[in-house]
Amino acid sequence: MDAGEGIQRQVLAKGIGLNRDLSIIITHLHGDHVSGLLGLLQTMGLAQRRRPVSVVGPPDLLKWLKVTSELLHVGLTYPIEFHPAKAGLVLRTKSFRVRATRADHSVEAYSYLVEETPRSGRFHPEKAKKLGIPEGRLWSRLQHGKSILVDGKKVLPSRVTDPPRPGRRVGYSGDTRPARRLVRFFAGCDLLIFDSTFRGSDLDKAKQRKHSTCVEAAELAKRAGARRLALTHFSARYEDVTPLVTEARRVFPRTFAAADGMMVGVDYPGEGPESQSIK
Amino acid sequence: MDAGEGIQRQVLAKGIGLNRDLSIIITHLHGDHVSGLLGLLQTMGLAQRRRPVSVVGPPDLLKWLKVTSELLHVGLTYPIEFHPAKAGLVLRTKSFRVRATRADHSVEAYSYLVEETPRSGRFHPEKAKKLGIPEGRLWSRLQHGKSILVDGKKVLPSRVTDPPRPGRRVGYSGDTRPARRLVRFFAGCDLLIFDSTFRGSDLDKAKQRKHSTCVEAAELAKRAGARRLALTHFSARYEDVTPLVTEARRVFPRTFAAADGMMVGVDYPGEGPESQSIK
Repeated sequence: MDAGEGIQRQVLAKGIGLNRDLSIIITHLHGDHVSGLLGLLQTMGLAQRRRPVSVVGPPDLLKWLKVTSELLHVGLTYPIEFHPAKAGLVLRTKSFRVRATRADHSVEAYSYLVEETPRSGRFHPEKAKKLGIPEGRLWSRLQHGKSILVDGKKVLPSRVTDPPRPGRRVGYSGDTRPARRLVRFFAGCDLLIFDSTFRGSDLDKAKQRKHSTCVEAAELAKRAGARRLALTHFSARYEDVTPLVTEARRVFPRTFAAADGMMVGVDYPGEGPESQSIK
Repeated sequence: MDAGEGIQRQVLAKGIGLNRDLSIIITHLHGDHVSGLLGLLQTMGLAQRRRPVSVVGPPDLLKWLKVTSELLHVGLTYPIEFHPAKAGLVLRTKSFRVRATRADHSVEAYSYLVEETPRSGRFHPEKAKKLGIPEGRLWSRLQHGKSILVDGKKVLPSRVTDPPRPGRRVGYSGDTRPARRLVRFFAGCDLLIFDSTFRGSDLDKAKQRKHSTCVEAAELAKRAGARRLALTHFSARYEDVTPLVTEARRVFPRTFAAADGMMVGVDYPGEGPESQSIK
């Protein structure tokens, strides 16, 4: 999600291989959201990547990639599959799908929701054994949610597996003013990452520059029924962002500040502490 | 000289203000030499820079800057003065001038020589006093290399100042094969920063990819009569670059390896130890 300067270092530092499945999702074409893209694409070329890379973003991003590839001699060893951002479904992979909606920023910008594919329910081998089902192909069918016949009797997968588990949903606002549309778009997501450029008292600046305050982010998370809120994109004017988190928690307690390189676990719906306080 | 990814962090970390005189000199349009440019230009805009920035580089760089500024909404608060690279003088400022020559790389590329403006010789106030010259305007004229009249007698500036001191000259090859032209171009420079992508034994790779080996860099520095040689642009295949420095020093002892963020003092011609060994 967005590729600020230095993203390739972060990718390497996190041990994310340069030849894995990769989708790059760009909210809008401002330098701090795309200036690391070129280096990342090029480094994957140097690593002799062959697998395609999916790129989602405003249509002008494709124009820029084309011009840049030509003028800067970016020799890619792999194809880029470009998916122009628009309201609705923009990308579907085996493990997740991505929906977009227009954000409200100074240039064409999108907010995204990543929805993990639902997982099959847990399979219980001991139950299958008790029903006298031989290990092997029949187990596999049940694990994949299909019924089988054993001694002429139909066995439904629900006898030996838990119900399918819904996937997790992570929302990312990009740079934006809050908007009613975003409340619906992010409804019930498991983690919401939201523009929190300014403190509550700097609301005028937020309006003028088309960003949100920490308080607005918290209000939106609350109205959307998000499970957790990560504040991000803090203005460089705040040396310490603790006051922004404190302000936001008065409205929405399950708030924390995102930071460079932070890794955040996301609980599955219905699992994990809903209201655990996060340091 | 060149603007790889992360250059703005280096600039900030070194305490180089974003509003100072600045000339950005690009050797060629490969990502690892320009991908930090966008972030640097943009950050100077955010810092409300007003003073122009000089940019020197291959003509296509201007094209790329124009397209990128438009598509990525780079709102610059200051003018960019673009100087297309070509053989000969490409930039002249109050404190230095820059000459270019074609390098020998896989794309249009230039090597540069930065020549510091000669400094006036040191002024000796005690000598001026002894000659009965009153402090003030007359001293200033002498300091600026002009003759004056005192009691009807002409006083030459050489009576009270040392001779002008030549400026320092720093050469930068960018990515290139060695070439006879470069020997002449870098002749007698006080510091030569040269492509040292490969070890001596990887000469075939160097030829194929249009780079130099550490040994070739050292040979060129020797033939050019450079005072010191900084090896740079090491291939990521070498975890430790010490062997490359060792190989080069057999040919040209005053060699060291450049490293991220390294600051290197450059002696004035005729000053400083010529053959000091550098760790």
